[in-house]
Amino acid sequence: MKMIDQRKLPHLYEVATFENHRETAKAIKDMVTRGAGCVGNAAAFAMAQAALEARDKPPTEFQAYLKEASETIKATRPTAVNLFKAVDRCLAAVDGVSVAERVERVVAEADKVFLEDIEASRAIAKYGAALIEEGARVLTHCNAGALAYVDRGTALAPIYQAFEDGLSVFVWVDETRPRNQGARLTSWELGQQGVPHTVIADNAAGFFMQRGEVDLILVGADRITSNGDVVNKIGTYEKALAAHDNGIPFWVAAPLMSFDFETPAGTGVEIEERPTEEVSHVWGMGEGGWTRVRVVSQGATVRNPAFDVTPARLVSGFITEYGLVKPPFRENLKKLSRLG
Amino acid sequence: MKMIDQRKLPHLYEVATFENHRETAKAIKDMVTRGAGCVGNAAAFAMAQAALEARDKPPTEFQAYLKEASETIKATRPTAVNLFKAVDRCLAAVDGVSVAERVERVVAEADKVFLEDIEASRAIAKYGAALIEEGARVLTHCNAGALAYVDRGTALAPIYQAFEDGLSVFVWVDETRPRNQGARLTSWELGQQGVPHTVIADNAAGFFMQRGEVDLILVGADRITSNGDVVNKIGTYEKALAAHDNGIPFWVAAPLMSFDFETPAGTGVEIEERPTEEVSHVWGMGEGGWTRVRVVSQGATVRNPAFDVTPARLVSGFITEYGLVKPPFRENLKKLSRLG
Repeated sequence: MKMIDQRKLPHLYEVATFENHRETAKAIKDMVTRGAGCVGNAAAFAMAQAALEARDKPPTEFQAYLKEASETIKATRPTAVNLFKAVDRCLAAVDGVSVAERVERVVAEADKVFLEDIEASRAIAKYGAALIEEGARVLTHCNAGALAYVDRGTALAPIYQAFEDGLSVFVWVDETRPRNQGARLTSWELGQQGVPHTVIADNAAGFFMQRGEVDLILVGADRITSNGDVVNKIGTYEKALAAHDNGIPFWVAAPLMSFDFETPAGTGVEIEERPTEEVSHVWGMGEGGWTRVRVVSQGATVRNPAFDVTPARLVSGFITEYGLVKPPFRENLKKLSRLG
Repeated sequence: MKMIDQRKLPHLYEVATFENHRETAKAIKDMVTRGAGCVGNAAAFAMAQAALEARDKPPTEFQAYLKEASETIKATRPTAVNLFKAVDRCLAAVDGVSVAERVERVVAEADKVFLEDIEASRAIAKYGAALIEEGARVLTHCNAGALAYVDRGTALAPIYQAFEDGLSVFVWVDETRPRNQGARLTSWELGQQGVPHTVIADNAAGFFMQRGEVDLILVGADRITSNGDVVNKIGTYEKALAAHDNGIPFWVAAPLMSFDFETPAGTGVEIEERPTEEVSHVWGMGEGGWTRVRVVSQGATVRNPAFDVTPARLVSGFITEYGLVKPPFRENLKKLSRLG
């Protein structure tokens, strides 16, 4: 399969090919692709690759091959629930038929994950746009846009919708250390669509909220637990605190695929720690091309958690493909879980 | 005068010479030196340079020259109050004597600013160390250490003291975007002294607080207003919110020179906006040496406020050279103002 290498965007645009499920799994781990939606879709297609790889095996071996592939894929990134759900859906699709049929079903299920992602983005765009008023200044963290999903994403989809509907809308883009998805990806995406925006250091988000220059926060999610806790890109919690302190609505846009109704609270979710080089070094365009510089002093210890947990009490509501979900979350998310 | 060029530390150690007050003023503006204390001291020495430059002028011209120099120096950076106080002290020292005596007095006043800074650091170290318990994990933002002051600084001074006293102490170092003073300077300083520490993205500070891995926050200040509001490095407000949300003491270490008793609240302080290249590009050590890379997508708008205001309600107390100041701040800072 082919994917844009998001690590060098927007400075370099490269499309890479991943020949088999192991290569695709490695691409997920190395963040060639990223974002809850893309990770889920890449995982589903990796399962389809695995099924195609094993199409000439006898049933038991086929099943064992697919099971092993599912474990390889699940071992790439522990936090976004979309990945696990996508893999499990593909695995569940293979039961009780011939190998040829099983292959067909896995591929069909992967396609279904893909198509549902597009539908969910479009519905989220529509429901979320209702929250955006004329002249709104929206702050977002990380990238939950077209580069994170198949279609136009979650947090950015309502912004694109409002902009298309002719509203004047402005976006504050957190640079989103350490991997700078805001500075690189969100800013590029918004620029491509002509949406006015300004990039700021993550540290400055609270400053602009305090100054009354932010009307609404829209972020995505990697996993939402049944009490409404939100596991999302590291730093989301700090922005939610600042939003709360300044009375600014804080909305989380996510498809049903990102809700983990089995886990009661965010404290129960494994938080991925990523390589420390992501903090100590910064990639960008240098004079001679794409390169990295060391910022942290030599020999210093570094920690790099990739996600944090925003407690449900700081969340105004969720934008899903089934509509808006407001508090009380425990009850209303239970209702949502029945729609899936 | 000579100063370490802090912009390239710790990757390159360069001492630069500034021949006259204009060069020194430019060095303050360009952040060759930085930190409330160093900025105040550099400003005082720039005034001494101006006095020496004008030593052969008649009294009226000397006075005009010094006044103009004071304006040049004050125009460099608007937020840290130390700079204004240091310049005004030197300017006030020249009244009513011969030019030769005036020169001598300005130079003596600059020396006094310098010596007071050392004394203040030492007293702050002592008073602040009382807040640090055995095994404490302290989080700090930016650099308020030896590189920000003449002696060992403000926020880091108590940590050095506790460490010297034999306590086991650990420091979480926010990288402090956009200029990475934490990643570059604080981490290097602590490493030189052998104090165990770990660098994290600013976004991760809230995460570790939430996990119960932070016992105390210690930061410096560029200006503290009479109600106890703290103007400090951008991002301090977000960290204070996270500390408050997790019941972690949040202390601000600063000498009397950093208190602005004339300004009633933080909203009255001018917040410096610095060049946008500080956000869009990152300096560091590349393969070929000291260089910068562009991170933000080409053509994107960027904003770069250098400080924010932490409301007094989020502050546990102040560590000054006269001891600890606890709430109610309005009353207790009035008492402090009488000691200066």
